[in-house]
Amino acid sequence: MNELDIEAVADPDLRDPVLVEGLPGVGHVGKLAADHLVEEKESELVRRVYSEHLPPQVSVSDDGTTELACAEIHAVELEDRDLLVLTGDHQASDNAGHYRLTGAFLDAAESFEVETVYALGGVPTGELMDEYAVVGAATDADFVAELEDAGVEFREDEPAGGIVGTSGLLLGLGERRGLRATCLMGETSGYLVDPKSARAVLEVLEDVLGFEVNFDSLEERAEEMEDVANKIQEMENQQSGMPSDENLRYIG
Amino acid sequence: MNELDIEAVADPDLRDPVLVEGLPGVGHVGKLAADHLVEEKESELVRRVYSEHLPPQVSVSDDGTTELACAEIHAVELEDRDLLVLTGDHQASDNAGHYRLTGAFLDAAESFEVETVYALGGVPTGELMDEYAVVGAATDADFVAELEDAGVEFREDEPAGGIVGTSGLLLGLGERRGLRATCLMGETSGYLVDPKSARAVLEVLEDVLGFEVNFDSLEERAEEMEDVANKIQEMENQQSGMPSDENLRYIG
Amino acid sequence: MNELDIEAVADPDLRDPVLVEGLPGVGHVGKLAADHLVEEKESELVRRVYSEHLPPQVSVSDDGTTELACAEIHAVELEDRDLLVLTGDHQASDNAGHYRLTGAFLDAAESFEVETVYALGGVPTGELMDEYAVVGAATDADFVAELEDAGVEFREDEPAGGIVGTSGLLLGLGERRGLRATCLMGETSGYLVDPKSARAVLEVLEDVLGFEVNFDSLEERAEEMEDVANKIQEMENQQSGMPSDENLRYIG
Amino acid sequence: MNELDIEAVADPDLRDPVLVEGLPGVGHVGKLAADHLVEEKESELVRRVYSEHLPPQVSVSDDGTTELACAEIHAVELEDRDLLVLTGDHQASDNAGHYRLTGAFLDAAESFEVETVYALGGVPTGELMDEYAVVGAATDADFVAELEDAGVEFREDEPAGGIVGTSGLLLGLGERRGLRATCLMGETSGYLVDPKSARAVLEVLEDVLGFEVNFDSLEERAEEMEDVANKIQEMENQQSGMPSDENLRYIG
Repeated sequence: MNELDIEAVADPDLRDPVLVEGLPGVGHVGKLAADHLVEEKESELVRRVYSEHLPPQVSVSDDGTTELACAEIHAVELEDRDLLVLTGDHQASDNAGHYRLTGAFLDAAESFEVETVYALGGVPTGELMDEYAVVGAATDADFVAELEDAGVEFREDEPAGGIVGTSGLLLGLGERRGLRATCLMGETSGYLVDPKSARAVLEVLEDVLGFEVNFDSLEERAEEMEDVANKIQEMENQQSGMPSDENLRYIG
Repeated sequence: MNELDIEAVADPDLRDPVLVEGLPGVGHVGKLAADHLVEEKESELVRRVYSEHLPPQVSVSDDGTTELACAEIHAVELEDRDLLVLTGDHQASDNAGHYRLTGAFLDAAESFEVETVYALGGVPTGELMDEYAVVGAATDADFVAELEDAGVEFREDEPAGGIVGTSGLLLGLGERRGLRATCLMGETSGYLVDPKSARAVLEVLEDVLGFEVNFDSLEERAEEMEDVANKIQEMENQQSGMPSDENLRYIG
Repeated sequence: MNELDIEAVADPDLRDPVLVEGLPGVGHVGKLAADHLVEEKESELVRRVYSEHLPPQVSVSDDGTTELACAEIHAVELEDRDLLVLTGDHQASDNAGHYRLTGAFLDAAESFEVETVYALGGVPTGELMDEYAVVGAATDADFVAELEDAGVEFREDEPAGGIVGTSGLLLGLGERRGLRATCLMGETSGYLVDPKSARAVLEVLEDVLGFEVNFDSLEERAEEMEDVANKIQEMENQQSGMPSDENLRYIG
Repeated sequence: MNELDIEAVADPDLRDPVLVEGLPGVGHVGKLAADHLVEEKESELVRRVYSEHLPPQVSVSDDGTTELACAEIHAVELEDRDLLVLTGDHQASDNAGHYRLTGAFLDAAESFEVETVYALGGVPTGELMDEYAVVGAATDADFVAELEDAGVEFREDEPAGGIVGTSGLLLGLGERRGLRATCLMGETSGYLVDPKSARAVLEVLEDVLGFEVNFDSLEERAEEMEDVANKIQEMENQQSGMPSDENLRYIG
């Protein structure tokens, strides 16, 4: 295997495609959102990206067969246009790998003449929440204005520390290639896998890209997570009256 | 030295060889099983693989001479066919190294026209056990079915987190080269070097590959380990009645 | 993107330029000093250096737009000569990266015919201080003598452990290319971002390079930091009478 | 700079030279011994080895001038033959670096037609000691026998875990190039820089290579260290009666 290996699974003609990325991250918001699009809409796997910069492992399916760690790009059919949706179970395992994998993702997207990139993710608030704002950042001021019209919030000093990993580099490296790119980050506690935050991000995407998606399965998942959160809060209340970071850290 | 260096020690003609891997891992199950085959059967060292991705060290033999860290491939003569058995004291020391070393192992195996790979290992159960199931995963559904007939168990969501390291990549990279590959994992507490689990794995291999091997030395080793485990349990019982993970972690 | 990417933003003619480096480090002394020169004097961005050896991230500006992690080189106009000032928010994220990025910085400087390098930084004293000596090290004895005349102190065994990171390599690699280089290190507690130490370093630079710079904004910043330090000391005094390393560690 | 850079400082004709290595390690035994030879005998610096695999730093001399991290090879003149003595302040900072730097050291040694390598080091015993055995390992049985005649002890299972770093690879990679190599390890507590252990190692070397060296300066250093050790032991005795690993760890 080479350091990076892009396997071309299919080469459909796509209508004005944009790249949507949802790899694991804060609250798994981006991953939940991207996986939801692939599951709910007509979709077709078009690329697999293998790399030495992904963890050295195979996953095991329910039927006992294995699959080498990879990132996948799916063509997703919307009402008026198509998406390329980047999904997977892993971020790169080292710094240079983040740069090289993101470069490979952009190469694949550009082979489908993508000009715009939507990186999806979460921004941690540190507290359980009822309403989910979507915070944004983008490569240029026009894109910022356009997303503000769709309800995305742009806040000074947020996210503090910038945007790291694949999402950040899709903007940083994308801009250097002349692409427009944004990162849409749903607010989330940071403690739990957060389907409600994923829905908030997808609703922005619906508005901006002009499509509709059914949220039933995401709502079911959200209710399951709420049950988990409530149980934890109950246990906590019996003890100290407040959920602690320690106990809630990443349950999902 | 190059990044990877495959030293060809011998090039015997082999009868329909398969690759069997047993590098260090959970309970040292795979290593114990592979070393047992090399010791009990007629065997000949055919390849040494040196690499910058192995730890920078030499081991010292009882006679005071040294050997550079390497992985070894032995030709092992069974009743009706031959094996290539991969053994060694080290896994790769970095992620990319896992990919590159596994690639080198597969290159060596393919130079002997190997078409099937058996990666041997352990799956941790977290408790001391009396019976040792062998859990499997494989590159294709036919191989899964074939191994199920030999008593291998295929379980949903097990091993959780997939199969990492050389064993995982022998399946992941092997499949990409068109090889059939399986990982056979003996159940083991995860706390102790486990010759009984190694025997369980070898018994599946006997069945699948049609050979017999004497288990006396492995049984002796198992009895020694049992003495160790009993002593620990006694000490523990005097204190808290139950062995703790802390105290049992990797004795062997 | 390549492993290292030097973007030529502008190519002005410069008068006898020297390179001044101020990347993040102890007390952010070097960074404060270098940023201050770029802000107070006529300056023009001439180079951006991108690299896989910088963290995989973008920063987000107040207007919501993003910028890929990079180091910047600015041409700064002084009374009688020009400077190239190296600034940025990151050191290299790995050892080899320090060597390669510093090599790129020196390549860029040499393309402007730089012959002398001033690396700016801080040297930790472990205690809050009233007076700020500037400690030095240089590539050759003549340069040491010249800097001693300007009040720089050269002390046996200081800094203990040598000079690490970009500052150290600008001397080490610079010397191997035939450049003269010095590291000027302002004494600083090591606990707080230290604008006063940055001023002390700049005053040496004023003397050596023959220019004057207004320190008002740096003084304001210093007063803010003093307020922070005083509050901490008050809180501490109410408790134990002395500021502790734990509580003061890197506030800024 | 390249990944590895061997600077040829001088190219004297040497009489039947062997390579002696003494880089930092357990008790700094090897480094003390190698530095002692360079200081006590006629010696000349012949090679500097720079590398990205050494830490990114410069050391500062007492006169304020700096030197880039490097390893040095000195020609040392003995009564009947010459040595090449490898010294320095650093081991490689990563695994592959150990392989590549050791390869460079061997390249340099072979350019002087070296056929035999003596790696010097310490083996930790975990307790303060009065007598200092020298434990050995070597690339071939003849060399083992020869060194046993000189009083070197070869012990089963010692050093446990093999020999790591440059010393280990000088044997491992040296053997692959057809060189004879040994590692001579002075017993040492492992807590203190140990000039007495260094003397023990040098006495073996005197015997094997047929030379004599004055030990006065090493003895002085040993007395200083003994004073330090006694003071620590006194302080300890006032408290618990025994020196603890915690307090003695690496004082020098």
